[in-house]
Amino acid sequence: MAVKRIGKQTIKFHNPPSIIGTSSIVGPKEGDGPLRGYFDIVLEDDTWGQKSFEKAEAKMQEEAIKLAIKNANLSVDNIQFLISGDLLNQIISSSYTARQIGIPYFGLYGACSTMTESLCIGAMIIDGGFADNVVCATSSHFSSAERQFRFPLEYGAQRKFSSQWTVTGAGATVLSANGNGPYITYITPGRIKDYGVTDASNMGGAMAPAAIDTLLQHFEDTGFTPQDYDLIVSGDLGLIGRRIVIDMMKKKGYDLSENYTDCGIKIFDVVEQDTHAGGSGCACSAVVLNGYIYKEMKKGTFNRVLVMSTGALHSPISTLQGESVPGIAHAITLENLPR
Amino acid sequence: MAVKRIGKQTIKFHNPPSIIGTSSIVGPKEGDGPLRGYFDIVLEDDTWGQKSFEKAEAKMQEEAIKLAIKNANLSVDNIQFLISGDLLNQIISSSYTARQIGIPYFGLYGACSTMTESLCIGAMIIDGGFADNVVCATSSHFSSAERQFRFPLEYGAQRKFSSQWTVTGAGATVLSANGNGPYITYITPGRIKDYGVTDASNMGGAMAPAAIDTLLQHFEDTGFTPQDYDLIVSGDLGLIGRRIVIDMMKKKGYDLSENYTDCGIKIFDVVEQDTHAGGSGCACSAVVLNGYIYKEMKKGTFNRVLVMSTGALHSPISTLQGESVPGIAHAITLENLPR
Repeated sequence: MAVKRIGKQTIKFHNPPSIIGTSSIVGPKEGDGPLRGYFDIVLEDDTWGQKSFEKAEAKMQEEAIKLAIKNANLSVDNIQFLISGDLLNQIISSSYTARQIGIPYFGLYGACSTMTESLCIGAMIIDGGFADNVVCATSSHFSSAERQFRFPLEYGAQRKFSSQWTVTGAGATVLSANGNGPYITYITPGRIKDYGVTDASNMGGAMAPAAIDTLLQHFEDTGFTPQDYDLIVSGDLGLIGRRIVIDMMKKKGYDLSENYTDCGIKIFDVVEQDTHAGGSGCACSAVVLNGYIYKEMKKGTFNRVLVMSTGALHSPISTLQGESVPGIAHAITLENLPR
Repeated sequence: MAVKRIGKQTIKFHNPPSIIGTSSIVGPKEGDGPLRGYFDIVLEDDTWGQKSFEKAEAKMQEEAIKLAIKNANLSVDNIQFLISGDLLNQIISSSYTARQIGIPYFGLYGACSTMTESLCIGAMIIDGGFADNVVCATSSHFSSAERQFRFPLEYGAQRKFSSQWTVTGAGATVLSANGNGPYITYITPGRIKDYGVTDASNMGGAMAPAAIDTLLQHFEDTGFTPQDYDLIVSGDLGLIGRRIVIDMMKKKGYDLSENYTDCGIKIFDVVEQDTHAGGSGCACSAVVLNGYIYKEMKKGTFNRVLVMSTGALHSPISTLQGESVPGIAHAITLENLPR
């Protein structure tokens, strides 16, 4: 069999899977941000008529999956696997959604790295010939995440300046063995890096080492430079994490100052919208990828983009037991023309 | 590309991945059970010298992974991916283990279906040519699971007769593109079935419909009958779930009365050890597969086995919000001689 692995940690696809449909659904605050025009649905009410934030999040994910399949001009019967996860304990948004969709399901937990984790696995399933079409999805909700990971909103806890704002939303991507792009041409799945950050209000700092590790490995494995990309985007490092990445990558000889940004910075006007260090959450990279990046690639604004969702793999229990916050980052290369 | 999908939901591998090393670590109660001779390590103390049950569980998973790699005569550097998950919120046992192992990591959440979920994904990664070797792993701990899903043990809550006993343990499997079996020849990944069970003390009843759905689909897709298998084993349906499966499969024309059992029944002497309906937890099918089944297949006692871990995908929050318990079951065929 021809070699698909290149370098230490990267896979180059022989039959690059094509994105053939996407969807993005966001809450009202995200709909007030600079990317408002790129989202398929902007909710006026972040409970979407449901009795709890958790049920609202599950509804967003379910509707996002259905919409992505519709946008791909397919029906659920044409999809062989649903690959999804979210931030909630036991990923209930994803599991209850998978119950409604009714197709074979692989549940993931990658925290905010879930979007590209699901796309890495989905792309291997397509390229390997195990499915014609798969759907990859994730969701997050500001209010369900705050009460689970930090404080219930009713406490009125003051937010630190390093805090980020969990994006309320859901995004889904249909990958196919057929289609005319953008294609996933390379993946660099990440390993965990943990530099000992214990502050659950500084996720950008906790995840930056993992992002740097994956970026260095990606450039080493592929021979690409940052300048080979029209855009390099991390998931939710925010202002603090992005600064660390640019500084550290410069020390390693890579200049990311021109074409690197972060979904958490793109999605909000961080000053006007008072989101401190920027957006975060599984949905952050999911809606920016499936809204802004996908649509601008279709227009030809970008032809080669590196997307790297970033995840902080702690739990409230592990933090209470004195553990630090492990980070992970999975990178995927999207190209309009496969090599 | 030649077709790997057969029927609606099953994949037949062209280059069946081989199991080349396994490991199983269990707690003292499991070590007192009928399978005691099959486990690599039986702990005398279920905290294994750690300060919390959660840290003990992570240590078990880490040691299980290292031992499986050693048993495969490999080193960590030879493994391209770690694919694992567990029951704890944010799968911290798996993530902290992955931090220690230091290789690219895909975190899963499939509750007690995690062992075969990870093997389904791992087998596709190997067969697709994306890795030479992967390790699939999971763990569970009676005390960490009870306090998270039901009641802290200190409450002394009375257990229902339909309750199951979460297995304390960890299991790991090294899959390889090379090796001399047993091989994973088919997989039938499952979809979610939910018949409305809301009793978190009746997991066997909640998961049985998913197990039946996957079994029916597997036999339909492959043309196999139950009698083509030397052994058919579900993950943790226990006494109640197994009875439902046998009854319902009989109505559908399949006789499972002779060669079908459940890991939760095999691992404990349910009467002598007072485990009510039997064992459960991610580790239940993990240690029975990586201990008993693997070793008996190597001896030739079994040559073709269907292993189907079963998962209940609820959370304490979803139960409090009135939701029922969705079930899922992923089946894999193990064969000493690939077809």
